[in-house]
Amino acid sequence: MTDAFVLAFRCNDRPGIVSAVSTALYELQCNITDAQQFSDPFAQRFFARIEFTTGQRDVDAAALAPVLDALDAEWTLRGRDDRMRVLILVSKQDHCLVDLLYHWRTGDLNMDVVAVASNHPRETFPRVDFGDVPFHHLPITPPTKREQETEILGLVNQYRVDLVVLARYMQILSPELCAALAGRAINIHHSFLPGFTGARPYHQAHDRGVKIIGATAHYVTAELDEGPIIAQDVEAVSHRDTPADLVRKGRDIERRVLAEAVGHHLTGRVFPNGRTTVVFRD
Amino acid sequence: MTDAFVLAFRCNDRPGIVSAVSTALYELQCNITDAQQFSDPFAQRFFARIEFTTGQRDVDAAALAPVLDALDAEWTLRGRDDRMRVLILVSKQDHCLVDLLYHWRTGDLNMDVVAVASNHPRETFPRVDFGDVPFHHLPITPPTKREQETEILGLVNQYRVDLVVLARYMQILSPELCAALAGRAINIHHSFLPGFTGARPYHQAHDRGVKIIGATAHYVTAELDEGPIIAQDVEAVSHRDTPADLVRKGRDIERRVLAEAVGHHLTGRVFPNGRTTVVFRD
Amino acid sequence: MTDAFVLAFRCNDRPGIVSAVSTALYELQCNITDAQQFSDPFAQRFFARIEFTTGQRDVDAAALAPVLDALDAEWTLRGRDDRMRVLILVSKQDHCLVDLLYHWRTGDLNMDVVAVASNHPRETFPRVDFGDVPFHHLPITPPTKREQETEILGLVNQYRVDLVVLARYMQILSPELCAALAGRAINIHHSFLPGFTGARPYHQAHDRGVKIIGATAHYVTAELDEGPIIAQDVEAVSHRDTPADLVRKGRDIERRVLAEAVGHHLTGRVFPNGRTTVVFRD
Amino acid sequence: MTDAFVLAFRCNDRPGIVSAVSTALYELQCNITDAQQFSDPFAQRFFARIEFTTGQRDVDAAALAPVLDALDAEWTLRGRDDRMRVLILVSKQDHCLVDLLYHWRTGDLNMDVVAVASNHPRETFPRVDFGDVPFHHLPITPPTKREQETEILGLVNQYRVDLVVLARYMQILSPELCAALAGRAINIHHSFLPGFTGARPYHQAHDRGVKIIGATAHYVTAELDEGPIIAQDVEAVSHRDTPADLVRKGRDIERRVLAEAVGHHLTGRVFPNGRTTVVFRD
Repeated sequence: MTDAFVLAFRCNDRPGIVSAVSTALYELQCNITDAQQFSDPFAQRFFARIEFTTGQRDVDAAALAPVLDALDAEWTLRGRDDRMRVLILVSKQDHCLVDLLYHWRTGDLNMDVVAVASNHPRETFPRVDFGDVPFHHLPITPPTKREQETEILGLVNQYRVDLVVLARYMQILSPELCAALAGRAINIHHSFLPGFTGARPYHQAHDRGVKIIGATAHYVTAELDEGPIIAQDVEAVSHRDTPADLVRKGRDIERRVLAEAVGHHLTGRVFPNGRTTVVFRD
Repeated sequence: MTDAFVLAFRCNDRPGIVSAVSTALYELQCNITDAQQFSDPFAQRFFARIEFTTGQRDVDAAALAPVLDALDAEWTLRGRDDRMRVLILVSKQDHCLVDLLYHWRTGDLNMDVVAVASNHPRETFPRVDFGDVPFHHLPITPPTKREQETEILGLVNQYRVDLVVLARYMQILSPELCAALAGRAINIHHSFLPGFTGARPYHQAHDRGVKIIGATAHYVTAELDEGPIIAQDVEAVSHRDTPADLVRKGRDIERRVLAEAVGHHLTGRVFPNGRTTVVFRD
Repeated sequence: MTDAFVLAFRCNDRPGIVSAVSTALYELQCNITDAQQFSDPFAQRFFARIEFTTGQRDVDAAALAPVLDALDAEWTLRGRDDRMRVLILVSKQDHCLVDLLYHWRTGDLNMDVVAVASNHPRETFPRVDFGDVPFHHLPITPPTKREQETEILGLVNQYRVDLVVLARYMQILSPELCAALAGRAINIHHSFLPGFTGARPYHQAHDRGVKIIGATAHYVTAELDEGPIIAQDVEAVSHRDTPADLVRKGRDIERRVLAEAVGHHLTGRVFPNGRTTVVFRD
Repeated sequence: MTDAFVLAFRCNDRPGIVSAVSTALYELQCNITDAQQFSDPFAQRFFARIEFTTGQRDVDAAALAPVLDALDAEWTLRGRDDRMRVLILVSKQDHCLVDLLYHWRTGDLNMDVVAVASNHPRETFPRVDFGDVPFHHLPITPPTKREQETEILGLVNQYRVDLVVLARYMQILSPELCAALAGRAINIHHSFLPGFTGARPYHQAHDRGVKIIGATAHYVTAELDEGPIIAQDVEAVSHRDTPADLVRKGRDIERRVLAEAVGHHLTGRVFPNGRTTVVFRD
């Protein structure tokens, strides 16, 4: 048990924001231990992540609300070690799934995986140890798409899900589902966006003879492959790499980038900002 | 003076290539010191770079010709420390130019810069020390484009140029000039291709909110931004970076990637292969 | 089933090596598809890795032996897709073990994990799915060290092990065991050698305030932390990282570097060369 | 002309620091645009960098002094675009010098190079264009070391130098000079510390067969090679690299890391913290 908390908020920019919020924290006898603030000069929006300790087991959120509401801020206040409740969606490829489960078990990712759902059956993953995590098979066909998405939303509600991670979930979400999960669904794109959108990016990369491939984690939006980017990474490749080699190397980048993006989100470091994000890296 | 040489060749694949060529070298009393061979299974083309020493100042190219001609190979044989003759083209921005001149002077890049040409006058570069390198001002306007390109080709011939480096030369070469310089003109694209083709890539990158920017060095072809890629590199960026910051950071990547690609070409490590390249890295 | 093979050898340098070997291959109707050769000018040793196809299921090793023996070469000839037989040694920390098992199952690492052994009991790894792989508990105490090592060697013989991977196996091997496993045992050192040898490298790194941490995979030798280096990698860290954070970030680098080194070894790309290695990267 | 300022300070940690300082700024009608704060839990020290705009040409430092003095803080207040006055020290190798001068001219590094001093004469650098920057030849021999260092300090005072950059200055500074320049002298170490201290690190790296080399920029202290680290970076190398190749590749890393560290210092992002630093990266 720790007495550390994270306050994250965004609002329109104006003078006095840090003064107002930090003074409210001080009056609650909180001590700021790690903080970042940023004002986007283009969007005229202000973003802040403030980590602080109290000396007590709790912090009086009600006492903070007036100052944040006066700023018309969107804000969250969480214990620094509180675990978000995560639903993982997956199709057939399990490299991101396996990696997330492993980081969950080691505690590298501070989350509770509350459920896994797939459009493929449990037998697709014979070697994956789900432990006590419930597995939901949600098959999908064009005519049942709407229905299946309703089931996904049902899981989100049933399990009080904070974050949905699309761990190589190869279905395109409907605009309605995207809207319902806005800002709380992260996807991994198997390419260095905006490089190779669309299908078979590693074959595209091979044909184009690129010397570096990458992957991109982003929030899900209705515009395919266009959601706000959270994290990206790359790896060098060469003429010796066949498309199959690129797929293999890509798997490693994908799981790494997805874990990084999920970690940033879980620790309150990511703020959607129009088409982009503010990420207060550690 | 060294007795080291580099034989580089490409030909259609068939059995016995390495045997034939290495035996010919052995019969000339050459000792292979560093070599790479690669057969592209898609293109069915074979590529080889063979570094060897003789115990003498020269190697009998005429004695190698029959075996290479029998393979219908395109080949070059150069002293390992021979310097290619390089013409640098530049517009206003001088960061790549300055870096190339510096690497030339230190000997990092084993070349002779035989001339610099620009569509802007010498006064554009007040702080650049060209030393004894002749500077040619070749102004260009739409009606004089053909004429100006003829002048460029004139320089290529006059100076017996091996390699033309477009060091942020912001003119689009005509298909004719591209064809005349095929395989011996390298351009730096101020983006991580195929990411942001077209104008103002750093503004595009800022609007898209990417977390990594890059640069691409490629051979010049008539298809703009589509030439075979030689080298790419990237750098992490964040929400704090304005378009001006991205331009500044991009300059550093651009000069690094261009110098790398030029170095690979100068040492006989790059082979065009259709739309792509084979690069035998050191 | 493929008809692709890898010939790897090293010998003292002299003229004619490539000619002799490639001609022998040609006479066996082999076609070289990917090859690298290197002559170390300091050690006057020659190294070669030659990948070739036959058109048949097998290659006549006996026909190659005379030419390689005449060179007094140490050589191996393997099917390109042949799987080495791997024994994994592990202590308590399982991040490298889990990653190796995963890469084995996906086929990213072309090996057969024939056994896992640990100085800790099977219950140490409740969440690890060993499938059909036998697990051997080999407890060790100072008085039983010799005996335990004899058991390890017994496993190596019993399972006809090609490669022993020390996946965070925290025991120091005796000089005798190191000698017995020379060139076929890979260790992961949780530091960027030669940076922080000895205990608790991440605490050392924190105290020193480094901005980058790394890991090193190397062949096991009797000189602790001094074996020939196969692969290294790094990651940026900051003042915000506590020793615990560094340990966590280090785990990711460790598993990545170890998997990379094992992959290089499995594909015949690594040659010990005195205190160092030659690694023909793909 | 801009109305942007940077306040940087460090003090012992206690509750209320951000509240006190940000409220003082607010009362001066300042608007915080980019800020980072960090409390080191080990040293119990607090660090802050606050970028803000006034709507005026100046900010009333006197009005801020009481609140910062009450915290017993060490603090600086500078216009964001104010240029620090920099003295560059150099010996024979000019790659870092040339790079710093170039970044100064492009404006990438927001500084005024007010003088260059060397223990070698002006003729050592025939191709370097110093423009209007005065060059001081300060020869040094063991008996004249004290005297020469007095001259260096004389330059520091004469030119009102904010920062001394040792751009491959190969003299060991006396403890007295180190003390006099504490926190305002940056050195580039041609190795990835703590890897290869001492002489000829690239030869050490070659003998050890490392697969990555690096460089380290740090504040100068009396303990050689042990000053607080500001920035580090690395590059992959291979068995093909001779010591001479490593030296050449090292030059590129050295100039890059030094420029990065100088940039962090110039923008008020670096705070010495005992043996380490806090670096608020952009």
